[in-house]
Amino acid sequence: MSGFLDKNKQRFLDELFDLLRIPSVSADPAFKDDVLKTAEFLKEKLIAAGAENVELCPTDGYPILYGDKIIDPALPTVLVYGHYDVQPPDPLDLWDSGPFEPVIKKTDIHPEGAIFARGACDDKGQVYMHFKAFEGMLAEDRLPCNVKFMIEGEEEVGSENLAPFLSANKEKLACDVILVSDTSVIANDCPSITVGLRGLSYVEVEVTGPNRDLHSGVFGGAVANPINILAKMIASLQDENNRITIPGFYDDVAVVSAEERKMMNDAPFNLKTYENDLEIGSVHGEEGFTTIERTSIRPTLDCNGIWGGYIGEGAKTVLPSKAYAKISMRLVPNQSSDKITELFKKHFESLAPDSVKVEVKPHHGGEAAVTPTDTPEYKAAHMAMEKSYGKAPIPARGGGSIPIVALFEEVLGVKTVLMGFGLDSDDIHSPNEHYGVFNYFKGIETIPYFFEYYAELKK
Amino acid sequence: MSGFLDKNKQRFLDELFDLLRIPSVSADPAFKDDVLKTAEFLKEKLIAAGAENVELCPTDGYPILYGDKIIDPALPTVLVYGHYDVQPPDPLDLWDSGPFEPVIKKTDIHPEGAIFARGACDDKGQVYMHFKAFEGMLAEDRLPCNVKFMIEGEEEVGSENLAPFLSANKEKLACDVILVSDTSVIANDCPSITVGLRGLSYVEVEVTGPNRDLHSGVFGGAVANPINILAKMIASLQDENNRITIPGFYDDVAVVSAEERKMMNDAPFNLKTYENDLEIGSVHGEEGFTTIERTSIRPTLDCNGIWGGYIGEGAKTVLPSKAYAKISMRLVPNQSSDKITELFKKHFESLAPDSVKVEVKPHHGGEAAVTPTDTPEYKAAHMAMEKSYGKAPIPARGGGSIPIVALFEEVLGVKTVLMGFGLDSDDIHSPNEHYGVFNYFKGIETIPYFFEYYAELKK
Repeated sequence: MSGFLDKNKQRFLDELFDLLRIPSVSADPAFKDDVLKTAEFLKEKLIAAGAENVELCPTDGYPILYGDKIIDPALPTVLVYGHYDVQPPDPLDLWDSGPFEPVIKKTDIHPEGAIFARGACDDKGQVYMHFKAFEGMLAEDRLPCNVKFMIEGEEEVGSENLAPFLSANKEKLACDVILVSDTSVIANDCPSITVGLRGLSYVEVEVTGPNRDLHSGVFGGAVANPINILAKMIASLQDENNRITIPGFYDDVAVVSAEERKMMNDAPFNLKTYENDLEIGSVHGEEGFTTIERTSIRPTLDCNGIWGGYIGEGAKTVLPSKAYAKISMRLVPNQSSDKITELFKKHFESLAPDSVKVEVKPHHGGEAAVTPTDTPEYKAAHMAMEKSYGKAPIPARGGGSIPIVALFEEVLGVKTVLMGFGLDSDDIHSPNEHYGVFNYFKGIETIPYFFEYYAELKK
Repeated sequence: MSGFLDKNKQRFLDELFDLLRIPSVSADPAFKDDVLKTAEFLKEKLIAAGAENVELCPTDGYPILYGDKIIDPALPTVLVYGHYDVQPPDPLDLWDSGPFEPVIKKTDIHPEGAIFARGACDDKGQVYMHFKAFEGMLAEDRLPCNVKFMIEGEEEVGSENLAPFLSANKEKLACDVILVSDTSVIANDCPSITVGLRGLSYVEVEVTGPNRDLHSGVFGGAVANPINILAKMIASLQDENNRITIPGFYDDVAVVSAEERKMMNDAPFNLKTYENDLEIGSVHGEEGFTTIERTSIRPTLDCNGIWGGYIGEGAKTVLPSKAYAKISMRLVPNQSSDKITELFKKHFESLAPDSVKVEVKPHHGGEAAVTPTDTPEYKAAHMAMEKSYGKAPIPARGGGSIPIVALFEEVLGVKTVLMGFGLDSDDIHSPNEHYGVFNYFKGIETIPYFFEYYAELKK
C-alpha cells in the first residue's frame, strides 16, 4: 500500500479538496442542493474506487450512500460507516480562510501542514481515507475480506433517518464489524483507540413573557423579562459544585472503577498546556473529577446557543417577548437519552414561574457506548496502528457522541471499532477546522492493515 | 385653531407619513444617510411652517435642528424639544406592515384609526404636532409668545452630543420653559401629565471562556461555558424577591411618601386587563410594590438582549468562546446613573469565576427627574388639556427615561413640562408601533392652548 499511497498523494489531496469545496451543511435547509451534490460526488468516487452495487438510498431526509465489494461470502465483512454532512461554519468572521476553500497551512502541531476547511477532519477527510485505502487494496489486489460502505448525510443533525434505514436493510447491511473513523488519537506520537463515547440529549427551549416586545421603561419592573427568567432557569440547572440539579439525572450513571480512573489519569495530559492553549485562567467542571474524567466518564450540560431581545449594534430598551436557548447534555453509559430528555423537559417546565410560558423541544439524542477491548476488531485496530505508528495505541474514552454506535449494536447486533485519526485540537465544529496531512495519509496507510489483521484474526 | 386644523387634517397626515417613511434609526450606522435625510426633511418643514434662523447645527454625531420665532423679546419663550431618530425596527418579522410604510388601521383602543409605523408615536408624530400647531398659530396670527425648536437625532442612543451643544449655546437656547411631547396620557378619556421619569444606566457585557469555539463533546464538562456562566451571573443580579443584589444599588433611592403612593394607586388601573392585554399569567416584580409603583417609583434591571453560540436552525454542539448581554437599569430620583453604572461594573466583574474573562462596557445613561406641579408651565399644561379633553388631567409618574429633563435643568437652569399624547399601549420600541389619529390631532389642538395659558400666567 505504501507504494500506491506514495504515488498518489497529490491526487488523494486534490480529490479531498474537491469534496471539501461542497458546503454540505445538513442543519441549514439553504444548503440542501449542496448536501445532495456531495452525496453524488461520493457516489461517483466510490464507483471509481471499485465498489459495486453503489447507490444513493433515499430516506425521509438526505440519502445514504451504499456500496460494497463482496469477494467471498465465506470471508468476514467489514462495514465502513461515516458521514458526508458537516457542521454549520458559523461564526464566519472567525475563519482565517474560507470554510469551503480548503488550503494547506503549517501549524505548530502540524509541521507538515494541515488542511483547513469545514469537514476536513469531521468527517469528510476521515471518510475519504477509507475510499482511498479501499482503492489501494483493490489496485494492489490485497483486499482480504468483504467491504460495505454506508455513508450518511445527517450525522450532524442527529441521524434521524438512520435507524429506520438499518431496520429496513438488515440483510443488505449484514456484517461482522463496523469500522468508523470519526474520532481522534491523543497525539500524533501517542496513538489511541476510542473505547467510550458519550451519549447526547439536545433540546431547544423557548421562554415567552408578554405577547409582544415592550418598552422596558414603561413595563420594566412589573412584567417578567424572558431573558432574565431564562438566565435564572439555566443558572439553576447546575449547583455550586457544577453538578446538574435535574432530579434523577445521575441515577443511572455508570460508576467507573477506581482502577480504570487511575489508568485514564495516567495517560499523557498536561493541565497547564491545556489551559494555556485555550487561554483560560482555569478549567471549570464537576467537583471531585479531573479534566480527563469530566470530559469522558461524567455527564455534562452546556448551552450551545442563546438569544433574545435586541442583539444589534448600540442600545435598545426593549423588554422582549421571547428568549431562547439550545442546551445539550452529554451522557455516559447507562443513561438513556430519551429518559434524560424527558427528565429535563419536566424539570425545566417546573422551573417556570407563572409569569412566563416555557416550551421544550427535543432536537436529537443518542446513547453513550463503551467498546470492549478483547474483541478481534479491537485487536486488529491495535495491531494496525502499532504497525503504522510504530507504537502501541492506548484505549481512550472520548467526550463526544457518535450515537450510531449504540444503534448499530441494537439494530444490527454488531460491534463497532472507533479507529479515528484526528486530534482534539483540530477545531472540529469550530472556525478553522483542520486535519493534518500527516493524519490523512496515516489513516490511508493504517486502514489496510486493519483489514489484513482482522481477516487473519477471524480465520 | 380648530378651524385651521379641521381644514388641514389630510395634509397634516400626509406630511407625517412622508416623515415616517424615512428610516432614521440612529443605533445602526447602516441608516446614517436616512437619519441625515430626516433632519433635512424637518428643516424644510420648519421653514415652511414659518420659523426663522432655521439650521442644522453640527455635533460629533447627528445634527440638531434649531429654529425660532421671536415676536417680542419681552415676552416669555417656550423651547420645544423632541427627537427625529427612532428605535431599530427589529424583529422585523413581527410587524404586520412595514415599519417604514405608514398605514392607518383601526384597533379596539383606536376606533378612529391609528398610524402604524416606527416613530409614529416616539417621537416623530409628537414632534410633528408641534410643527403643525406652530404653523397654525402663525397662520391665525395668535402666537402669544416666542418659540424655539431644538430637535435632536440621538435620543434613542443616549443624547451624547446634547450636553456639549447645550453648554456651547446657552444664549441661543435661553428660554423660560421647555415643552416636550414624548410621553403618554393614561387613556384617551383620562388625560394626564407626566411628573416623574426614571433615569437609566445601560451596559453591554461580554463573557469570554476559551479563546475559540470548541466542540462541546470533546471539551464540555471541563471548560467553562460562557453562556452558562453569563446566565449564572445575570440570575444572581436579582434575589427571590426580585430585588437587585448589586451592593449599594438601593442606597440613594428616594423614598416616596405613603400619601403619594396612595394617590398613585388610586389612578385608574385594572390588573386583570393589564395581564390579559399582555397575555401573561401574572405580573412579576419587586415584592412589596404594586404594578404602578414597580413601573414608576422603583428601579429595575432588565436584559434587553442576549446572544452567544449557535443561534441558527437545527443543532450545533458548540461550546462557544463568547456570550454577550445588553442590560439596562431604570433609576429613580436621587440615584446617579454614573454611580450605578460603576456599582454594576464592579459587582459584575466580581461575579466572574477564574475560568472566564468579563468586560463591562457602559452604553449610555441619564438621570431620573420629578417635575413640580405648582409652576406656571404645569398649570398651563393642565389648563390646556382640560380645555381640549374637557376633563382635568392628573399628574402621573412615567416609567421611561428622558434623561434630557435633568440635563436641561442642570445646564440651562430651566424646567421642563412633559405634555405627551401617546398611550402606553402604542407599542413604542416594539413591532407595530402606532399612534392614534385622535391623539395626533388632539396634540395639535392642545399645544396652542398651552402657549395661550402660559403667556397669560407669565404676565
